[in-house]
Amino acid sequence: MTTDTLEKPRLSDTAQVDSQSIAPFPNSKKIYVQGSRPDIRVPMREINLSITPTEFGGEQNPPVRVYDTSGVYTDPNVKIDVRQGLPDVRSAWIAERGDTEVLQQKSSSFTQQRLHDASLDTLRFNHQRQPLKAKPRANVTQMHYARCGIITPEMEYIAIRENMSWQQAKEQGVLDQQHAGEHFGANIPDEITPEFVRSEVACGRAIIPANINHPELEPMIIGRNFLVKINGNIGNSAVTSSIEEEVAKLTWGTRWGADTIMDLSTGKNIHETREWIIRNSSVPIGTVPIYQALEKVDGVAEDLTWEIFRDTLIEQAEQGVDYFTIHAGVLLRYVPLTAKRVTGIVSRGGSIMAKWCLAHHRENFLYTHFEDICEIMKAYDVSFSLGDGLRPGSIADANDEAQFGELETLGELTKIAWKHDVQVMIEGPGHVPMHMIKENMDKQLRECGEAPFYTLGPLTTDIAPGYDHITSGIGAAMIGWYGCAMLCYVTPKEHLGLPNKDDVKEGIITYKIAAHAADLAKGHPGAQLRDNALSKARFEFRWEDQFNLGLDPDTARSYHDETLPKDSAKVAHFCSMCGPKFCSMKITQEVRDYAAEHGTDITPIAEDEVVRMIDVEAEMRKKSEEFREKGSEIYGKI
Amino acid sequence: MTTDTLEKPRLSDTAQVDSQSIAPFPNSKKIYVQGSRPDIRVPMREINLSITPTEFGGEQNPPVRVYDTSGVYTDPNVKIDVRQGLPDVRSAWIAERGDTEVLQQKSSSFTQQRLHDASLDTLRFNHQRQPLKAKPRANVTQMHYARCGIITPEMEYIAIRENMSWQQAKEQGVLDQQHAGEHFGANIPDEITPEFVRSEVACGRAIIPANINHPELEPMIIGRNFLVKINGNIGNSAVTSSIEEEVAKLTWGTRWGADTIMDLSTGKNIHETREWIIRNSSVPIGTVPIYQALEKVDGVAEDLTWEIFRDTLIEQAEQGVDYFTIHAGVLLRYVPLTAKRVTGIVSRGGSIMAKWCLAHHRENFLYTHFEDICEIMKAYDVSFSLGDGLRPGSIADANDEAQFGELETLGELTKIAWKHDVQVMIEGPGHVPMHMIKENMDKQLRECGEAPFYTLGPLTTDIAPGYDHITSGIGAAMIGWYGCAMLCYVTPKEHLGLPNKDDVKEGIITYKIAAHAADLAKGHPGAQLRDNALSKARFEFRWEDQFNLGLDPDTARSYHDETLPKDSAKVAHFCSMCGPKFCSMKITQEVRDYAAEHGTDITPIAEDEVVRMIDVEAEMRKKSEEFREKGSEIYGKI
Repeated sequence: MTTDTLEKPRLSDTAQVDSQSIAPFPNSKKIYVQGSRPDIRVPMREINLSITPTEFGGEQNPPVRVYDTSGVYTDPNVKIDVRQGLPDVRSAWIAERGDTEVLQQKSSSFTQQRLHDASLDTLRFNHQRQPLKAKPRANVTQMHYARCGIITPEMEYIAIRENMSWQQAKEQGVLDQQHAGEHFGANIPDEITPEFVRSEVACGRAIIPANINHPELEPMIIGRNFLVKINGNIGNSAVTSSIEEEVAKLTWGTRWGADTIMDLSTGKNIHETREWIIRNSSVPIGTVPIYQALEKVDGVAEDLTWEIFRDTLIEQAEQGVDYFTIHAGVLLRYVPLTAKRVTGIVSRGGSIMAKWCLAHHRENFLYTHFEDICEIMKAYDVSFSLGDGLRPGSIADANDEAQFGELETLGELTKIAWKHDVQVMIEGPGHVPMHMIKENMDKQLRECGEAPFYTLGPLTTDIAPGYDHITSGIGAAMIGWYGCAMLCYVTPKEHLGLPNKDDVKEGIITYKIAAHAADLAKGHPGAQLRDNALSKARFEFRWEDQFNLGLDPDTARSYHDETLPKDSAKVAHFCSMCGPKFCSMKITQEVRDYAAEHGTDITPIAEDEVVRMIDVEAEMRKKSEEFREKGSEIYGKI
Repeated sequence: MTTDTLEKPRLSDTAQVDSQSIAPFPNSKKIYVQGSRPDIRVPMREINLSITPTEFGGEQNPPVRVYDTSGVYTDPNVKIDVRQGLPDVRSAWIAERGDTEVLQQKSSSFTQQRLHDASLDTLRFNHQRQPLKAKPRANVTQMHYARCGIITPEMEYIAIRENMSWQQAKEQGVLDQQHAGEHFGANIPDEITPEFVRSEVACGRAIIPANINHPELEPMIIGRNFLVKINGNIGNSAVTSSIEEEVAKLTWGTRWGADTIMDLSTGKNIHETREWIIRNSSVPIGTVPIYQALEKVDGVAEDLTWEIFRDTLIEQAEQGVDYFTIHAGVLLRYVPLTAKRVTGIVSRGGSIMAKWCLAHHRENFLYTHFEDICEIMKAYDVSFSLGDGLRPGSIADANDEAQFGELETLGELTKIAWKHDVQVMIEGPGHVPMHMIKENMDKQLRECGEAPFYTLGPLTTDIAPGYDHITSGIGAAMIGWYGCAMLCYVTPKEHLGLPNKDDVKEGIITYKIAAHAADLAKGHPGAQLRDNALSKARFEFRWEDQFNLGLDPDTARSYHDETLPKDSAKVAHFCSMCGPKFCSMKITQEVRDYAAEHGTDITPIAEDEVVRMIDVEAEMRKKSEEFREKGSEIYGKI
């Protein structure tokens, strides 16, 4: 008994799902749209709406379907147990392609060492999967299939998911109730078909991050001709946070809309933390393998070797990481260009490689071994996220020669990866004032052959620590509009500390706003449906519908209730801003009633009768007198 | 005794300043820059910085001066008593112009009625000023003086205030450490001179809201060739909030950077609330007089008359309101155009006038009496803020014919006001997707002869109730860049309830970000100085300087302290994001040390030796081998 109680509890016995992450969304239903085969079941959230009050017309409002990244955590029919991991979505699809083999054991020597370390038993995730790898000479990337003309189940799944807004608008007959966008050369079709998905992946304009060792994944796509995506970062550091906290941040982040999650852990037990994260993630997981490689050499950058890095890639690929940030563009010759900057090199990966290059007086081994890396990527279908190790860390350093030199090199590397049919996206800045953002996007498209751009912000000013979700949300919305495919979130804690759960949510919602604003501005088919439904609800005082259609129903409801807490207020036809006596919405309804009676297509007062009040005071006086006398008469003629 | 204790306490005995609003800013000093005469003393906040740590160079960092809207509340040498109101800044300037007269009593009959109502004694502000008015046939507007070639003390004051950034950059010899902006046709000189201020006011491109009855005002300017300004709204409604709360929101809002404050009260005691606000405000106060006029007719819009409205204008003008929102562009013929909108008319002022027009079948009396209004404006120097009563309340309604029709009418009215030398700015939307924002700005400049544009947001999506400071902050930054002169803030409570103090601060900081991002993008001379200083502090781990240079030192500090609470952490040369073992900033310093030793102007590896890795795999392999062998040699040659 005594020894038992002294023993540390095992995480595989005690770990619990974050209860907030599995709460149902109000008035929402998890639905699945089936594809061409029963195992293609695309999740969506359907928000049910109430009937319009009689005085506004009394019509039924159709439910609104929204893109759903929350996984089965919000499916009340699925029993969630983070100790077991998520149900399998893709194993059958992978198996039936017949180009993979099950490995008898994990290939990485580091993995082996961790597996046999009894001191880690309390931390370990217990339901390890047998690792898969491409058969010799096989290439298992989605890009490879796409180029062979194969439409994979992943592609069909994505087509259904991306097509949802247009499909809904079509079903409701409201395809025309949307502004034409300005797309800056994007080529977004009305209907997203599986073939369109295939063709975009084949030419490298979009990627489907989907490691064969991450079958829990619900497939998604990143590319400028699809909905703009967002990434949330989580991860412990040497200073703070635990495995369970990180899993909670993952499920919390995807609940609010993270399309992918990067695990940027730099502290202890990176390997075990990652296993817990991937097994419980329905979205692609990205990492920066150099962080872990650095831990393996005890933080001494110059001790890094290709062999240690290679083993780390294989370790992570066999766990199921879907994309790797690789800082292969930090070339020796670019490093001194950063010396005169205000903030030098701010990317951790970039500075690790810069230090290595300087210490050895040799070219970046990620660059010299780039094709060796491609060989690993294509054996597991890990996508490249080519890191911008020299991104600007301040407004002063934006768009300088170090940054753009690296971007050109990333363009070269993109083409090499594509030669291997390996999927690639390109990371981007950083801190950039508004007027210099478009230059980044245009140059990236040009240099990198339209490979998807994936940017951090950019932050449009440096002067607001504590609010960098906002400084960067501005830049993110703009670059999303210009053609960026995925926006990496920034939380209020940026530059100050690691985000907690509240910060994660604040960052995610801010970036959902940026991404959706970009979709609207690009004129993405059907994107405006949700705005229209919410605004109609707002106009008709359907408070609950307004909350529920919003990105964050909980916050909207609680803000409303601060002033008018009673339930009755939520059906009241006024709000706390104007009070019950006067209400502009009510008056608009009177205008409508008037128009319904007298016709809306009223011929305006003829142009020559309109008071043109420029320059001649006397005329103005006379005319205004006329109006005072004849106003009702003129109106009466209508 | 018993009756005494039963009596309601008088606000003029009990009211206290909000203690948070007078707390000193950390490491900051209030300074005054003197102009050509001793009574021109322009307030600024000077942030003192620490010495750069030895390993980064050990230099002294010059203090940074920032634009200061907080008034004497942050001057420790001034004893603040909200029951007395603020010290006088402008009375001598007004008096010496010799064109005003002191009225023996307030002209408005409503004011008289309130003054003689004993039941209001507990609410009344006790130190009423004698009202001033222009002498018969005199015109006391800043525009009139400007057109007469007079540079007023107000103009000189503003020149010193606006010129601060450029002046500092010049003194520090860092004028070139800033990106050239993209100004879209703005004409911002390097140095803002008093004569430039005069000329901009003369041609109507800028306004100085400065009622002769608001001598407590610290003059400021609104125009596209000056720093972008922000407005914060306060005001009670029939449902919530008290006079003392509103004064606290005023001082709290200006502390964080509100350049003007609009009092949008619609509830009880609007008159008394406004008196307290103006007497305690160092920034211009704007109102929407129709709100109060409506209260006077007990909320029945159709009972409004020109006479009631006129008395309200005079009442408010003699209290010292600096600008009036007047919805004179809501013409009868535009009203039916809103019937088919998703959200009809969302402006309160707009819907009041629409209702009046429909009820009477007559033209808007604000339009027909526009020149009568001009006569009042010029007698007190109240500026027009021509209201956009038909602004879109949803993405769906953006840029429609109702909105743009009204804007054209506002353009006509602008020219009439200018004929009277009355200052004008134009209010703008609303809800507009990103790609339709510039059209608003361009049309406004064209239709309104470059009169300053003053926009609410615009909100770039409708789907985030609870986060509309962010949906609108995106649009605000963009339209500020395009040429908008003042941004009206939106708080997180928009659409949901009235803002409390926290919301006011969140809205203000968000809009300071938007305005500053716009200044940077326009290339406003010296605007980048603060960004550069903050980023330098960040790079050098001068945590306290980083916090203090930020828009909100308190929040930045508290976020940092959540992870690393000890004081020692604030001098530690690492942060919680990476931990002590590895730090990218440290590595950059090593790059600098290296560059200092070997020279920064390293000739890059010759272009033809660079691995050009496109298309030919074999060549790539060979070249990368070469690099592996010769890397250090090539580098050694440098």
